[in-house]
Amino acid sequence: MNILVINCGSSSLKYQLIDMENEEVLAKGLVERIGIEGSRVKHTTTGKEEVIIEEPMPDHRKALELVLNALVDTNYGAIESMDEIGAVGHRVVHGGEKFANSVLIDDAVMEALNDCIELAPLHNPPNIMGIEACKELMPNTPMVGVFDTAFHQTIPMSNYIYPLPYELYEKYGIRKYGFHGTSHKYVSQRAAEMLDKPIEELNIVTCHLGNGASVCAVQGGKSIETSMGFTPLEGLAMGTRSGDVDPAVIPFIMEKEGLTFDEVNEMLNKKSGVLGISGISSDFRDLEEAAANGNKRAKLALELFCNRVKKYIGAYAALMCNIDALVFTAGIGENSISIREQICDDLECINIKLDKELNQVRGEEAILNKDLTSTSILVIPTNEELMIARDTLELVEK
Amino acid sequence: MNILVINCGSSSLKYQLIDMENEEVLAKGLVERIGIEGSRVKHTTTGKEEVIIEEPMPDHRKALELVLNALVDTNYGAIESMDEIGAVGHRVVHGGEKFANSVLIDDAVMEALNDCIELAPLHNPPNIMGIEACKELMPNTPMVGVFDTAFHQTIPMSNYIYPLPYELYEKYGIRKYGFHGTSHKYVSQRAAEMLDKPIEELNIVTCHLGNGASVCAVQGGKSIETSMGFTPLEGLAMGTRSGDVDPAVIPFIMEKEGLTFDEVNEMLNKKSGVLGISGISSDFRDLEEAAANGNKRAKLALELFCNRVKKYIGAYAALMCNIDALVFTAGIGENSISIREQICDDLECINIKLDKELNQVRGEEAILNKDLTSTSILVIPTNEELMIARDTLELVEK
Repeated sequence: MNILVINCGSSSLKYQLIDMENEEVLAKGLVERIGIEGSRVKHTTTGKEEVIIEEPMPDHRKALELVLNALVDTNYGAIESMDEIGAVGHRVVHGGEKFANSVLIDDAVMEALNDCIELAPLHNPPNIMGIEACKELMPNTPMVGVFDTAFHQTIPMSNYIYPLPYELYEKYGIRKYGFHGTSHKYVSQRAAEMLDKPIEELNIVTCHLGNGASVCAVQGGKSIETSMGFTPLEGLAMGTRSGDVDPAVIPFIMEKEGLTFDEVNEMLNKKSGVLGISGISSDFRDLEEAAANGNKRAKLALELFCNRVKKYIGAYAALMCNIDALVFTAGIGENSISIREQICDDLECINIKLDKELNQVRGEEAILNKDLTSTSILVIPTNEELMIARDTLELVEK
Repeated sequence: MNILVINCGSSSLKYQLIDMENEEVLAKGLVERIGIEGSRVKHTTTGKEEVIIEEPMPDHRKALELVLNALVDTNYGAIESMDEIGAVGHRVVHGGEKFANSVLIDDAVMEALNDCIELAPLHNPPNIMGIEACKELMPNTPMVGVFDTAFHQTIPMSNYIYPLPYELYEKYGIRKYGFHGTSHKYVSQRAAEMLDKPIEELNIVTCHLGNGASVCAVQGGKSIETSMGFTPLEGLAMGTRSGDVDPAVIPFIMEKEGLTFDEVNEMLNKKSGVLGISGISSDFRDLEEAAANGNKRAKLALELFCNRVKKYIGAYAALMCNIDALVFTAGIGENSISIREQICDDLECINIKLDKELNQVRGEEAILNKDLTSTSILVIPTNEELMIARDTLELVEK
């Protein structure tokens, strides 16, 4: 069965068509600037050249229509007709407490998704728009929702509750949800396969280090703690997101700078993190270059970033009693040799010994420790699309 | 030389008179309800009975006058005249970036203290009032300011800077300062003495667990990281303070509940922490009792509290590469057998093995590990007053 995987942002739509017989990608692409002037589809069918389709796209429905046309195009398409798409898997950011697993989408699910909008006002509405567009254009194709939060629904209450008045949890659902769940799940499962051990017996710390970044403690295959919280703002310092700060700083800044709720959220989400510290860039490649050229604030931003990852690794080692494997994934985790080295430096106390030669690797699966009695250190490129397709297939076949 | 140590809160004044020849406490006491109806002094001279002096005290000056009278009282006093007080040591909460050490108080220092008010609007004004009152009543006695933040001025920038726009640090001094410094310093020095090792060679994690609580990573005698931040709100869950929460939660709550800056600060400082979760009490003895009687939210609050301490210990172990000693101090740290046990449970990965029998101790110095090849676990009652007196003596004798 071919499964179409869709990931809608507010003005973007990423997709992959995967043949589940062999889990091969038949085609993939990206729609940019939906609802903005200059919208376009970048489409690539495996084995063919990339095509760029520029056409006005006022909404996600129009964008999806162009994607479906591209997929069945006689010249640059991947399939002959839409009947060859057996099911659609949608990435949904926030499933709240309602979804601890992926789910076949029906009317009740749509209602529950709408209930979660308040928790993810930036992310869930475009996800829902994508689903609505699909329902219109492919009314008879089964669809599945796969949630970024679902994998973390196994986190025990003593880790997900905040030390705030309990009523705030009951009234508004203020608690830790965690994100990047599909990625943490994929790489932890893949780690167990690479180590040829049952995941039930492993304590794994997974570091999803991209422009958004989070760490997860995976015990016996289940998330028991993660660094992102009520929103994807908490935890590590990220490209433009602050991560953890003294909560008292927020009202202090709002008062001093006269910021509204939206403005302070904008500042914390878009102008903070390593961009805020360095004043240069949110891109770690830029920062590494600047630091190498002597820029002190770029160096400071990188040090802070690595120290925070290190502290979370130590914290999760303490929480799980030990670590069998440490996994790096996503843009920075897969590609930055120097950041992996800096994070693992001086972590012998929890038996982490990175081999600098083995660490000379980018974007491919690798084991980075030579000493096999120490904690396994792995690089695993994440594959959220494949996880979404697998969950979709499983639910559709049921 | 006798040194008077003074610690002023907004409506309270704690004091100790210490004979520095032998570091013995000659007298101590507490003034409550300054500026409120029902104000009184509880005074005890060592070896004599406690006396309670009830008298209206409109301000700290009047309170201090009564304290000085009590100290020289023929019946229940400790000294014959005020000339026997060689110097006064004042606890000051916030020294900002200006004070990395204790300091002899002169006009320039008073000005600098006033500049720090913005950073500690609740704490510094009563500290300053106490100093002003002393200057009036004992104009010729030298005075020293000892700062809660000073010990943490050795924290490297990559640990004290927040991942926020850098301008906020330059403009408002928004950074991690850390608190309880006098306590962390005292117990880490005492730990080195108890272990008979030079502090320069030790990595120590000190857990000051009281109604306010913080953890500190002390490397070679210097604080390199601590859990409190810009204010004493960050870090561990405390009696009534939230500690770490997703920063995005703050504007969310403010908007939903229509709270002002002061109201949200009040909520985070006074209605959160273990009180907020349990809905019962901020007192850990009450929570332990309720949990033992099956109260789920009390149990949850204790679990969360212990998990957070555990995570900070792991994080600081990772940051320092290893831990030689783990120290428990302050109300809960010195007295709660079950909380120490819960925190140390399953921490073998960083070589922490608490001996349950040795752990049956309250309020006195003790070593809690039987296995001497593992990390030393110590209980050390804190003594901030003695630290303040020692610093005062040192500066006055210079």
